[in-house]
Amino acid sequence: MHRGSTGIALEPHPDRLLPSDPAERSIARRLYDSVRDLPLISPHGHVDPALLAQDTPFGDPAGLLVTPDHYVTRLLHAHGVPLHELGLRDRDGHTAAPREVWRAFCSHWRFFLGTASRQWLEGELHDVLGVTAHPSAATADALFDELTERLAKPGFRPRELYESFNIAVLATTDDPADDLRHHRALADDPSWRGRVVPTFRPDRYLDATHPGWPAALDRLAEASDVDTGSYRGTIAALEQRREFFRRHGATTTDHSAPDARMEFLPEAEASRLFDAVRSGEAGPGDGRLLSRHLLGEMARMSSEDGMVLALHTGVDRNHHEPTFSRYGRDTGHDIPLRAEFTQALKPMLRRFGTHPVFQTVLFTLDETVFSRELAPLAGFYPTVYLGAPWWFLDAPRAMRRFRDAVTETAGFHRSAGFIDDTRSFCSIPARHDTARRVDAAYLAGLVAEHVLTEDDAQEVLRDLTDRQPRKAFRL
Amino acid sequence: MHRGSTGIALEPHPDRLLPSDPAERSIARRLYDSVRDLPLISPHGHVDPALLAQDTPFGDPAGLLVTPDHYVTRLLHAHGVPLHELGLRDRDGHTAAPREVWRAFCSHWRFFLGTASRQWLEGELHDVLGVTAHPSAATADALFDELTERLAKPGFRPRELYESFNIAVLATTDDPADDLRHHRALADDPSWRGRVVPTFRPDRYLDATHPGWPAALDRLAEASDVDTGSYRGTIAALEQRREFFRRHGATTTDHSAPDARMEFLPEAEASRLFDAVRSGEAGPGDGRLLSRHLLGEMARMSSEDGMVLALHTGVDRNHHEPTFSRYGRDTGHDIPLRAEFTQALKPMLRRFGTHPVFQTVLFTLDETVFSRELAPLAGFYPTVYLGAPWWFLDAPRAMRRFRDAVTETAGFHRSAGFIDDTRSFCSIPARHDTARRVDAAYLAGLVAEHVLTEDDAQEVLRDLTDRQPRKAFRL
Amino acid sequence: MHRGSTGIALEPHPDRLLPSDPAERSIARRLYDSVRDLPLISPHGHVDPALLAQDTPFGDPAGLLVTPDHYVTRLLHAHGVPLHELGLRDRDGHTAAPREVWRAFCSHWRFFLGTASRQWLEGELHDVLGVTAHPSAATADALFDELTERLAKPGFRPRELYESFNIAVLATTDDPADDLRHHRALADDPSWRGRVVPTFRPDRYLDATHPGWPAALDRLAEASDVDTGSYRGTIAALEQRREFFRRHGATTTDHSAPDARMEFLPEAEASRLFDAVRSGEAGPGDGRLLSRHLLGEMARMSSEDGMVLALHTGVDRNHHEPTFSRYGRDTGHDIPLRAEFTQALKPMLRRFGTHPVFQTVLFTLDETVFSRELAPLAGFYPTVYLGAPWWFLDAPRAMRRFRDAVTETAGFHRSAGFIDDTRSFCSIPARHDTARRVDAAYLAGLVAEHVLTEDDAQEVLRDLTDRQPRKAFRL
Repeated sequence: MHRGSTGIALEPHPDRLLPSDPAERSIARRLYDSVRDLPLISPHGHVDPALLAQDTPFGDPAGLLVTPDHYVTRLLHAHGVPLHELGLRDRDGHTAAPREVWRAFCSHWRFFLGTASRQWLEGELHDVLGVTAHPSAATADALFDELTERLAKPGFRPRELYESFNIAVLATTDDPADDLRHHRALADDPSWRGRVVPTFRPDRYLDATHPGWPAALDRLAEASDVDTGSYRGTIAALEQRREFFRRHGATTTDHSAPDARMEFLPEAEASRLFDAVRSGEAGPGDGRLLSRHLLGEMARMSSEDGMVLALHTGVDRNHHEPTFSRYGRDTGHDIPLRAEFTQALKPMLRRFGTHPVFQTVLFTLDETVFSRELAPLAGFYPTVYLGAPWWFLDAPRAMRRFRDAVTETAGFHRSAGFIDDTRSFCSIPARHDTARRVDAAYLAGLVAEHVLTEDDAQEVLRDLTDRQPRKAFRL
Repeated sequence: MHRGSTGIALEPHPDRLLPSDPAERSIARRLYDSVRDLPLISPHGHVDPALLAQDTPFGDPAGLLVTPDHYVTRLLHAHGVPLHELGLRDRDGHTAAPREVWRAFCSHWRFFLGTASRQWLEGELHDVLGVTAHPSAATADALFDELTERLAKPGFRPRELYESFNIAVLATTDDPADDLRHHRALADDPSWRGRVVPTFRPDRYLDATHPGWPAALDRLAEASDVDTGSYRGTIAALEQRREFFRRHGATTTDHSAPDARMEFLPEAEASRLFDAVRSGEAGPGDGRLLSRHLLGEMARMSSEDGMVLALHTGVDRNHHEPTFSRYGRDTGHDIPLRAEFTQALKPMLRRFGTHPVFQTVLFTLDETVFSRELAPLAGFYPTVYLGAPWWFLDAPRAMRRFRDAVTETAGFHRSAGFIDDTRSFCSIPARHDTARRVDAAYLAGLVAEHVLTEDDAQEVLRDLTDRQPRKAFRL
Repeated sequence: MHRGSTGIALEPHPDRLLPSDPAERSIARRLYDSVRDLPLISPHGHVDPALLAQDTPFGDPAGLLVTPDHYVTRLLHAHGVPLHELGLRDRDGHTAAPREVWRAFCSHWRFFLGTASRQWLEGELHDVLGVTAHPSAATADALFDELTERLAKPGFRPRELYESFNIAVLATTDDPADDLRHHRALADDPSWRGRVVPTFRPDRYLDATHPGWPAALDRLAEASDVDTGSYRGTIAALEQRREFFRRHGATTTDHSAPDARMEFLPEAEASRLFDAVRSGEAGPGDGRLLSRHLLGEMARMSSEDGMVLALHTGVDRNHHEPTFSRYGRDTGHDIPLRAEFTQALKPMLRRFGTHPVFQTVLFTLDETVFSRELAPLAGFYPTVYLGAPWWFLDAPRAMRRFRDAVTETAGFHRSAGFIDDTRSFCSIPARHDTARRVDAAYLAGLVAEHVLTEDDAQEVLRDLTDRQPRKAFRL
C-alpha cells in the first residue's frame, strides 16, 4: 500500500489515475509510457505571453499557485475565505500579503481532496517545484520560504520551465486590438526556440448587447486603422485583425457566447441593425440578433481564411453581482447553463457544415449534449470537432464520461484532443499528464474488454495526444 | 461464491455493494468498518413523531413494510397490482386485508431485483426483523405469521428500535400549524433519551396557486394566533411559527416547490398581490409570483433566524389524476421534471449567497444539474450545500454518479451527507448502511487509483457520515 | 494477451465486452453462455421483407455492409468521404462502383475503433462472412473479391442466413398503405418456417404539418378503399389498415414524432381542424395540433385493438438541408434533440395509463430522461415499458448507462429487452450478441457486488433476452 497523507509526505504515486485492476493497470502503464514524454500541444489557454517574452522570475508561491487560479480561489471562498484574503484586490484596495494568502491555502488543503485542482497542484508542487511535504497550517510558513527561495533560482524562470515542460506549441488568448508585441518579441528573439501563437478572441467586439460595445469598436478602429462607424467598416476591421493575427501565427479564433446560435442576415439588414445598436436606438432583442449575426460572420470568415472557430458557450458569467462589483470578473462565479447545439448550429452548418475550408471545435459545460448532440454532429459533419471536456469538466471522471458518451458514436478521431485552458503556467505539465493518464486508463479498459487490441489503443492514444489537436486546431 | 436465491435463504452478504476487485474491496472494507457503527444522523425524513412519542407496537408486516412505502407500492402497481390490493384505501373504502397485501408483495418479490428498495427491504427483513427466507408466494403466509408474532415481542417497539438503530438525531417533517405535541411529549419524558427534532415544512402556506391556500392561511392564523388576512400578518404568523419550531429543536425549513425561483418584491407590491390572490381576484401568473416571493421570504427569514433552507424541487406531483382522485396523494405517481438552478437561484443568491447566517441545501431529481449547476454553485457560494441524491436517485449507482459528478468540482466537503427521507422507520438503518457502503466503495476506488491516501479517505468518510450532515443542517 | 491488430488477423475475442476482472468475468461468461444460443427476438427493425420473400442472393460487400448502413456512411462522411463515393446516388445520378466504395470503407477502417459499428462489423465479417483479415487499404481488393465470391455460394442466401441466425421472430417496419405482399408470400410459402411480422408505421399519415400529407391520405384511401376526405373517413381508414396489419401478424404500431405530446380533441373540433388543414386553410400551429391529436387517436385505437404503441421521438431529421436535397432522407444527419416525457405524456396517460388493454414502449435519444422520467413512469404505470437504448445509444457503454439509470427505480422487468433496429440483415446476430454480452456483464457486476445472486442474475438475463421483448411487444 502506497501511503502518504495530508500533512505527511507529498509523493504522487507513479500509477495515479490508472485502473486498479492489475491486468488493466499493466496495459494502462504501457500505453501511458508510450506517450508520457511526447511534447505538449496546447491549442487553447490563458497564459500571458509577456511571461515568456520578458522571462520575469515568478515571485512567491501564493502569486504563482493561489491568487491567479480561480479554480483554487473559488473553492477556498466556498469554505469561507473572503477573496481579498486570497490576494484578490477589492475595489477599496484591500488585499492580503502573499504569506497570509499562502497560509489560508495551506490550512484548507484537505478540502481539495477529490478535486481536479488537487491533482494539478500535487503535480506542480512535487514535479515542478520539488515540494515533498503536504501543505498544512503547520507546514505553511516553511513551504512559503522554501518556495520563494526556489523560485528565484536558475531553472525556475518561465523560459527554462517552457523548455523543461517540453512544450511544442502554446496558444495564448488575445484581444483583436492587441498589437501582439510579446509574440513579436519572441519571434524576433534568436535565443527563443519555442512556439507561442496568439488566438483571436473577439468577444467584446461581437457582443452588441454590452454597454461597452461602442467603445470596444472605437478601440478596434484604432488598432486596425479602419473606421468602425459602419457595419462594413467593422467587418473590414475584424478581417484586417484576423489577417494580422494569422500573420503572427494564429490558427484559431475563440468565442465565448451565451449560446451557439448564429444568424446570417442580408448585408443591408445587418447594416441597419448595426447602425441602430451603435447609436443606442435599437429595440429589445436587436443587440442579441446582431451579436448572433456577427458570430455568423466569424464563421463566414473562417470559411475564407481557414482559421478554426472554437466555440465555448453556455456560462452565466459573474453570477454573484456583489462579488463582481467588488472584485471584478473571472473571480470564480461563472456558472454553467443548459446547452443546446442541434438547432442552434443548424443555420451555420447548413452553410459551412461540409465546407472544404471551414472548421469548428465545440466545447460545452453541459454533459448532456455529449451523446445527444455533439457526437452525432461530429459523426456526420467533417467540419465539426469535439472539444475536450472543458473547465468544470476538465477532470478525470468527467473526461472518462466524455469518452464514454461520444466514442461509440463518433470514434476517437473526431475529438480534438486535450486543451489545458489554464492561466497557471506551472500547471500545464500536470494537466496534460492527467489527460494522458485518463486516456490511457480509458483505452486500457477497452483493451482489457477486448474491444481494441493494445496496438490499436497505442495508436489511438498517440493520435489523441498529438495528431488530433494538431488537426483540429490546424497547428 | 456466496449463493442464496429468491425463495431460498435470505442472507445479505457482508460485502454487498463493496467493489468486486479484491484490492479495492479490502480497502473498502476497512473504510466501511471505520464508520459502520457511527450513530445515524437523519436530518430529513418523514417518520411520524407519534410513533416514538406513543411507542405503539407495529402491527403486521404489510402495514410496516408495504402499504406505507410508496417506493414499494408503485412498483407493485407497475406490475399490475391495484393499489387497494396493497392496503391503500380508495375513495369507496375498498382495501385489502394485511395478509392479502403481504401475499401480493411476496409473490412479486423477484420484480424488486436490482432496485434500491430490494436492498433496504433485505436489510430490514434480515437485520432488523431476523427473517432468513426470501419472500415468495410459497413463504408468504408463514412469513406473515412469523413477523406478526415477532412484532408483538419486546425489542420491536419503536423506542427500542430507535436505541438499537443507534440514532443520534432524527428530524421529522411537520406542518407549521402543528402544535408539536409529540415532540414536546418526548422532550418532557424523562425516560426518553433520544433526539427527535421537527422540521418546518410550510409548502401549503406558500403555494398561492392552490385553491386550498386561503383555508391554509386560516389554519395558520389559528395556530399562531396572528391574523393572516393581510400580507404583513401572514409574514408575522410564519415568523412566529418558525420561532416556535426553533424553540422545540428545529434547525431546518424544508420546501417542495415546482422550481427554485424566488422573487423579492417590494413590500407594497407583495401586499397588493397578496390581497388580490387572497380575495380570488388575481390575474394569471399572480399566484405563482406570490408563491415565489413567499419562498424568497423564507430565505430572508433564514438569513435572520439561521434555520437552514432545504429545497426539494422539480416534481410533477400526482401525475395520474385518476389515481389521485381515487387514492389521494403520495401514492407513487410523482414524476420528476427537468431542473434549472443557475438562473432560478440568482436573485436569491445575489442577496444571501455570501450571507454570514443564511444556509441552504439543494436537492434535485434531475441528475444533469449535478455537474452543470450544483457543484459549480456549491464550489463558490459558502452558503450552498449539495443535498444527497434524493428519492429516485437515493440508490447505490445513482449515489456513485452523484459523487462522480460533483466531487471533482466541489470536493467532498460541500456535500451535506446522507438523508434517508423515509416514512418507513425500520428502513432507516438499511438506508444509512447502504450510503456508508457506497461512499466507502467510492472512496476505495479513489484510493486504489492513488487519488487519495487511505488515511485521507477514512477522514473523508467520517466527515461524510457525521460532520457534513451536522454542519449542513446545523444539528 | 489476445492480440490481433488492424490490418492483421481479424479474430473477435470470445470474451469481448465481458468485464476484465477475473472473478466478474467468470460470472459473466456463465451468464452469457446461458443465453448466447437463445433464439433472437427482433421486435423492431428495418429489414426489407422482400429480402426473405424473394431470397435474392446478396451481391457485393459494399452493397451489403456499407451503402445501406447510415451508421457507417455517416462516420466515413465525417472523415471526408462524400456520400456518392459510398454508393449513395446524388440527384444527378453520381455514385461510385462497389469496389471503389469498398476501398473507401477499408482504408478508413481504423476510424471506427471504439464505435458500436465496429463491434457489429467485426461480428458480421468474422462470424457471418468468415473474414479473417482486418479491412485496410492493402486488403481491400482481395477482401472484395473473396466476399463477392462467397456471397454467391450456398449458405449465404437470406433464408439460409435467417435459419442459421436462429431468429424466432423478425418484425419489419411498413407503410400502412403497403399491401404486405411479401409478408403474405412468406406466409403462403410452405417451405418457409420463419416468422416475419409487419409493423404499422403511419408517420406520414399523422404528420399534418408536412406538405405531402394530403397526398399521403389519398394513397391511404386507395389502400383502404375508404374515403379519407373527412376526419371520420381518415380515422376509419387507419382503423381498417391496423386491422389488416393485425390479421397479417402485426402486434405493434411504431411512431416517430417530434415529441411525445398527444392531444385529445372533441371529435367535432378534430373534424374542423382536419378540414382546415386538409384544404390548406389552417392557421399556424393547427397542423401540429392535429398531428398530436392523430397520435392520440393511435393511443385510443391501441386501447381497443391491443396493438402496442412504440414511440420514438426527439430527432431533428435531415439536419443538413444541402445533403438532404442532394441525397434524400436517411443519409446520416438526423440529430437528436432534448426530450421531455413527464408533461408530454400526461394527457395520454391520464386516459390510458392504467388501461387494461393499452400498452406503450418508450424510446429516447436523450439519456437524461432515463432516470429522471422514463424509469419513474415505467415504475408506476403498468402500461409503460422502457424501450432499449436506441440508435446512437445502441452501444455497449450507453446500454450500461441505461441499466444503471433505470434499474434502481424500475427493476429489470419494466424494460422491453433489446431491439436491433437495423436495415442491415447480416448485422442482426452481432447486435443481439452485443446486447447479451452487455447485459451479462452488467449483471455479473451486480453478482460480484452481492446485489444479486448468480441464480437471480441468470433468471433476469433470460427474461431480458426472451420474456421481456415478447411481453412488451406482445409477440
